[in-house]
Amino acid sequence: MALLDENRLLPVDQGVRALARALYDAVKNAPIVSPHGHTDPRWFAQDAPFADPAQLLVTPDHYVFRMLHSQGVPLESLGVPRVDGGASETDGRKIWRCFAQHYHLFRATPSRLWLDHAFETVFGFDTPLSAATADDYYDRISQALTRPEMRPRALFKRFNIEVIATTESPLDDLKWHKMISESGWDGRVITAYRPDAVTDPDFEGFGDNIEQFCALGGQSSTSFDAYLDAHRDRRGYFKSFGATSSDHGHRTAATLNLDRAGAKALYDKVLAGQADAAEREAFRAQMLTEMAKMSVEDGLVMQIHPGSWRNHSTPVHQRFGRDKGYDIPTRTDYVAALKPLLDAVGEEPDLRVILFTLDETSYARELAPLAGVYPCLRLGPAWWFHDSFEGMWRYREMITETAGFYNTVGFNDDTRAYLSIPARHDVARRVDAGFLANLVATGRLSEEDAYEVIQDLTHRLARQAYKL
Amino acid sequence: MALLDENRLLPVDQGVRALARALYDAVKNAPIVSPHGHTDPRWFAQDAPFADPAQLLVTPDHYVFRMLHSQGVPLESLGVPRVDGGASETDGRKIWRCFAQHYHLFRATPSRLWLDHAFETVFGFDTPLSAATADDYYDRISQALTRPEMRPRALFKRFNIEVIATTESPLDDLKWHKMISESGWDGRVITAYRPDAVTDPDFEGFGDNIEQFCALGGQSSTSFDAYLDAHRDRRGYFKSFGATSSDHGHRTAATLNLDRAGAKALYDKVLAGQADAAEREAFRAQMLTEMAKMSVEDGLVMQIHPGSWRNHSTPVHQRFGRDKGYDIPTRTDYVAALKPLLDAVGEEPDLRVILFTLDETSYARELAPLAGVYPCLRLGPAWWFHDSFEGMWRYREMITETAGFYNTVGFNDDTRAYLSIPARHDVARRVDAGFLANLVATGRLSEEDAYEVIQDLTHRLARQAYKL
Amino acid sequence: MALLDENRLLPVDQGVRALARALYDAVKNAPIVSPHGHTDPRWFAQDAPFADPAQLLVTPDHYVFRMLHSQGVPLESLGVPRVDGGASETDGRKIWRCFAQHYHLFRATPSRLWLDHAFETVFGFDTPLSAATADDYYDRISQALTRPEMRPRALFKRFNIEVIATTESPLDDLKWHKMISESGWDGRVITAYRPDAVTDPDFEGFGDNIEQFCALGGQSSTSFDAYLDAHRDRRGYFKSFGATSSDHGHRTAATLNLDRAGAKALYDKVLAGQADAAEREAFRAQMLTEMAKMSVEDGLVMQIHPGSWRNHSTPVHQRFGRDKGYDIPTRTDYVAALKPLLDAVGEEPDLRVILFTLDETSYARELAPLAGVYPCLRLGPAWWFHDSFEGMWRYREMITETAGFYNTVGFNDDTRAYLSIPARHDVARRVDAGFLANLVATGRLSEEDAYEVIQDLTHRLARQAYKL
Repeated sequence: MALLDENRLLPVDQGVRALARALYDAVKNAPIVSPHGHTDPRWFAQDAPFADPAQLLVTPDHYVFRMLHSQGVPLESLGVPRVDGGASETDGRKIWRCFAQHYHLFRATPSRLWLDHAFETVFGFDTPLSAATADDYYDRISQALTRPEMRPRALFKRFNIEVIATTESPLDDLKWHKMISESGWDGRVITAYRPDAVTDPDFEGFGDNIEQFCALGGQSSTSFDAYLDAHRDRRGYFKSFGATSSDHGHRTAATLNLDRAGAKALYDKVLAGQADAAEREAFRAQMLTEMAKMSVEDGLVMQIHPGSWRNHSTPVHQRFGRDKGYDIPTRTDYVAALKPLLDAVGEEPDLRVILFTLDETSYARELAPLAGVYPCLRLGPAWWFHDSFEGMWRYREMITETAGFYNTVGFNDDTRAYLSIPARHDVARRVDAGFLANLVATGRLSEEDAYEVIQDLTHRLARQAYKL
Repeated sequence: MALLDENRLLPVDQGVRALARALYDAVKNAPIVSPHGHTDPRWFAQDAPFADPAQLLVTPDHYVFRMLHSQGVPLESLGVPRVDGGASETDGRKIWRCFAQHYHLFRATPSRLWLDHAFETVFGFDTPLSAATADDYYDRISQALTRPEMRPRALFKRFNIEVIATTESPLDDLKWHKMISESGWDGRVITAYRPDAVTDPDFEGFGDNIEQFCALGGQSSTSFDAYLDAHRDRRGYFKSFGATSSDHGHRTAATLNLDRAGAKALYDKVLAGQADAAEREAFRAQMLTEMAKMSVEDGLVMQIHPGSWRNHSTPVHQRFGRDKGYDIPTRTDYVAALKPLLDAVGEEPDLRVILFTLDETSYARELAPLAGVYPCLRLGPAWWFHDSFEGMWRYREMITETAGFYNTVGFNDDTRAYLSIPARHDVARRVDAGFLANLVATGRLSEEDAYEVIQDLTHRLARQAYKL
Repeated sequence: MALLDENRLLPVDQGVRALARALYDAVKNAPIVSPHGHTDPRWFAQDAPFADPAQLLVTPDHYVFRMLHSQGVPLESLGVPRVDGGASETDGRKIWRCFAQHYHLFRATPSRLWLDHAFETVFGFDTPLSAATADDYYDRISQALTRPEMRPRALFKRFNIEVIATTESPLDDLKWHKMISESGWDGRVITAYRPDAVTDPDFEGFGDNIEQFCALGGQSSTSFDAYLDAHRDRRGYFKSFGATSSDHGHRTAATLNLDRAGAKALYDKVLAGQADAAEREAFRAQMLTEMAKMSVEDGLVMQIHPGSWRNHSTPVHQRFGRDKGYDIPTRTDYVAALKPLLDAVGEEPDLRVILFTLDETSYARELAPLAGVYPCLRLGPAWWFHDSFEGMWRYREMITETAGFYNTVGFNDDTRAYLSIPARHDVARRVDAGFLANLVATGRLSEEDAYEVIQDLTHRLARQAYKL
C-alpha cells in the first residue's frame, strides 16, 4: 500500500487526466528553482545530521503545531519552548506520539500531503502514521537521520535543487553563507535581503537595530542619509552572497513618497521613539518606496508580503514568543496603498516588484488588474495558507484571465520545512498541469501551447522573475 | 415522474458519483441532530394540526416571500400582516395561487429543492407546482394537514429527529418547553439562550427589557452587577430546559474587554439612554466577552452570528415590521473584532465559541486561520443564504485545507420551516459525500477515512461541538 | 486547422457536454440584443470602411495594449497618442508586428478568444497569429477591410444584431444618431444617457459642462432647479433617439437623499468650486437619487457601474490621457451605499435599477440578497475584467441560489471593439449552456426548464430588463 496516489491532484475526468498526466510528466523531474524560502543556511554550511523526528518535523513546523493546538493540545506538549524557561516537553518520542495520535486532524490538509510525501519518498513508509504506527515511524526516522544520505547537502542533491534562496536580516553577518561559499560545495544557496528589523518601528529592538545596522553598513552616524547609505551598503553585501531580491513583510501594503525633508523629519521622529501609530505606519510606507528606488539602482527584485497580523494572541506571544502559529491574515488593499510607489517608479523599465497576498479577494479585483498593466509588477504564487491544491487552483482561476501567465512568477515554497520542499513543488506542478489540461479540454489553450506553458510555470518564469 | 432526482447534488463524473453515492448511502438514514434552529416549541407542546398550505409554506417563509416580492408581488398579496392593521390577503388559496404562478422564480434555488422535497416526500406529489397544478396542490395539502400523521410530534418521529434546539429570548418564560417536558412525550426539544433583547441597546424596548429581565432573574435592582447575575440566573434556567448553547446575533463581531469600572460606567450610560452609536456598539462588544466568561463558568457553548444588516428598508420595516426578508449581509471582520475576547479567554480549555459568517471572504482569510489555532474556536456551517449546494461547497473548499474537518461542527438547519428540515440535512449530507468523494478521487483522502469523516460531518461533530 | 474548438467552454464531462451543446445549439443563432455598449454611432451613420488592422484591433483596445504594456512595451510603440503631441508609432504594420510578437501573452485570456473568433469567423484565418504569421495577417486583414461586406452596416447584419445601444454624454448633440435615423437604414442603434460629465464634480471641465448642459437643456440659468430641468429635457431628447436607459459610472455606489434645501446648497457649493472631497462625493450620491426619481417619472432604466479607480497612474494619465488601461477595480460597498436611494424609491413599482460590480465579493454577500428582495433591483452581467469564462461562471454560481435567474438581465457586451461583439455573446451563451447543463446533471433543474431558461438568458431577459 502506498501513502500517495500517483495521480493525486489531477482532474477526475479521465480524458482531462490523461493530458494533465502527460503535462505533469514533462516537468516532474525538472530541477527545483526555489527563489524564496526560509531554510537555515547553517544546515548547508555545517552539513550536520538533523536531530530527532520531532525536532525535524513537529516542533518547528507551525502548520503542524497550530492544528494540534487548535484541538486543545498545549504547545508545551509539543516541545515549543517557553519564554520564561518553564517546562516544555523534551522527549522527542512523547512529542511524536502526541502528533501521531492526532494525525487524523490533518485529513485533507496540505500538511498531510507534504508529510506523507516525505514519509513515503524520503523514509520509505507505506503504512499511514497513526497512534498504532507512531513508534515504528519514530524508530525508523531516527535511524535514517544518522545516515549520510540524510544530511542537508545530500538531500539538496537528491531533491534536485538548482538554486535555493534563504532569507536574512540586514543585521545578519551571513557567516553561514560565507562558510558555504568558502567550502567549495557546488550547491547554489543564496540569500535575500529582509530589512523589516530596521524598517518597521514596531519590530522588537528597533532603535538598537538601527544603530547596529548603520555601524554594520560602515556609517558613523545614524542620520537618515547614513541610514539610507547603510541600506545601499548592506544590499551590496547581500548581493555579493548571491542575493537577487529583497523581501518586505509589513502588515499592510501602504506606500508613501514624501519629499526628502518630510522623510527625514519622519525618520527622526520615529528614531526618537516619538512617532504615533500612524507615523510608524507612514515610515514603513515611505521605506517601501525607498527600497523600490534602490531596486531601480541596484536591480534587486522587490517582494512585498503584506496582510498578516503577526502574533495575534497576546497571552501566547508573551508565553512562547513570535511565530507560534498565531499569524492571521487580514483584509488587504493594494490599489490605494501602492499608488504612491507606483506613481514614483511604477513605469521604470528595470524595476520589478513581486506582490503576494493572503487576501484572495484581491486576486481578481486588484492584483491581476494591477499586474496586467504596470510594467514593474508581477504576482507571486498562492501564499502560505493558500499554498495548497485549492489555494493554487483559485489563484490560477482568478488571475489568469486578466493578468495572463506571464505576469506571474512560478512557484515559491517559502518554507523552513526542508523535507517538504519536493512535495510542495510537486503539488504546484500537478495543479498547473491539471489547470492547463482543463484549458485545453475546454478550447481555451492549444495542446502545443500547454506544453510550453508548463515549462514556463515550473522553472522559466521563476528564473526570469528573480533574475536567477 | 418524480420531483427529485435520486442522485441530485452528487458529482457528475460517474466514477466519483458512485463513491459519493456510497458515502451518502452510509448516512442518508442517520438521525437528525439539529443543534440550532427556530422551530416553535408551541408546536411540540400543543401538537395541534398546522393551518392551511399558505400559512404553513408561504406566509412565514422569508426565503419564499422575498423572492416573490423581488419580482413585484406586494407583501400584502402573500398574507404578510401590516403593522397598521391595513388589509392583507387572508384567503389561503389566493396566496397559494400567487405563489404557484411565480414558482419558476425559484429555479435553481435551494428553496425550490426544499419545497419539492417536502412536496414529494411528505405529500406524495409527482407533478411540479405551477399555475396549472396550484389548486390540486392546495387541496391535497389541506386535506393532508388534517391527518394525525401530519401533526408536529408525528412529523418529529417521521423526520427521525434525535434532538432539536429552539431559540428563545431570556424574557421568555419557556412555558412551551415546560409543557413539553411535563407531557411525558419522549421527543428531545431543547432551548438556547439568545439574549440580544437585553444585550443590544438598539433592540426595540431595550430599557423595558432590562427591567423585566432583571426581575425575572430574581434581581431587585438593575445595576450592572444585578444585570450580570440575572444573566447567570437565566442561563441556569435555560440549562434546566436542556440548553447547551447561547446565541448572539449582533451586526458585527466586535468584542471588548473593559475593566469592571469601565464596563459599569458604560452600562449605566447605555441604560440611561445617553450612549451614542459607538458606545452602544461598545456595550454589545463588552457583552460578548461577558457572555464568553460566563460560558467558561457554566459550559454553555457560545454561538456568534454577526454580519446581517437587519430590516434594511426603512419603509418596509415601518409597514410590515421585523424579519420581512430585508436582512442583508455585510462585510464582516473577525481578526481585529475578536481579539479582545480571545486575549481574555481564548486559551481557556473548556470554552467553546462557534463562529458563523455571511461574508464568505472571511472563510479562507480569517475564520479558518483563527479556528486552525485557537483552541476555543469552531466554525459553524455555511449559513443562511449559503445554506445551499454552492454555498456549502465553497465553505468546504475554502475552510478545509487550513482548519481541517475537526474545527467545524457539522450541519445546522437554522430554520423555522419545519417541513424543510429533512431536505436541508439531506442537502448537507449529499454535498459532504460529494466533497469527500472528490477528495478520494484526487488522492487527498483515503476511502477508509472518507467513510469515517462522513459520519463525523453528519452527526458526531454536531453532538460533540454542542455537547449533546 | 481551426483557431476555435467547436466545443470550447462547454463542460468536460461528456454527458454534461452533450446536453450543454444541445442547449447552446438552441440559441447560438439567436439575434444579438446589446443593451449596453460603447460602439461609435458615427460608424453606423457614415458606414465608412475601417482603417488598418492596428487601428481596428490594437490601438483602441485597452485590453490589448494594457497587456502588452504590462510586459514592458511602451504605449507609444502601440500607436497610443501622447497628450503633448510627442512621437507615437503611426506605421500600422510595425504596431501589428509588435502585437503579433507578444501574442503568447494572451494565452488563456478572453482577449485571445475574442481575437481568434474574429480572425477565424470574420477573416477566415486558420493559423494562429505569431511573429511568423504577422505580415500575412496584416495583409489579408488590410485587404478585407476594403470590401463592402466589412463596412459597419454590413457587419451589423452579418452579426445578426437586433438592437445595439451606444452611450453618450448629455453634452452630445446626438448628430450621428440623427443621421442614422434620417438615413432610412433599418438597423436599430439607440443611445443611452450617461451624465457623469455633469453629475461628477471631479470630471474634467465640470463647471463648463454644467453651463453648456443647462443651455442645451433650454435653461437660461444654472440654478439647481434649472439644472434638474435640464436633465429632464436631455433625458427626453435621448429618449427620442431610442434611449431606454441611463448609465452612471461613479467610483462608489454612494447615494444620498437630502431635503431640497440641502441639495440646493450642496449644488451651489459644488458649482462654486468650494466643495471638499466629501461634499463632491455627496453630490454624486445625491445625483444618483435624483436620477432614480426621474426614472420613476420617465421610465428610463437606471444602470449603476461603480467601483473603478479610473486613470490610476498619474504619470501615465498625464502623458496619455484618460482610459489607457489604468482603471483598477476597488472594494465596493452596496448595502450602506444604496440605502438612501432605496429608502426613497426602492419600492416604486415601475422603477428599475441595474447594478454592476467589479468586486466579486459583493455578488453573494450583497448584490444577490439585495436583488432578491427589492423589487426595483436587477443585477447586470459579469462586468469588464469578469466578462470571461471564469468570471461568468463565478457570477452564476454566486448569484443564482439567492437571486435566481429572473433578477438578472442577460448579457451586455459593453464594448467598443466592434468585431468582438459576436464572440462575446457567444461566450456568454456557452457559459450559460454549460451552467444549466450542470444544474440538470446534478438534479437542480429539469431539462425542460433548462431549454426555457437558456432563451431567457440569451435574449428575453435583456429585452425585458431594458424595455427593448
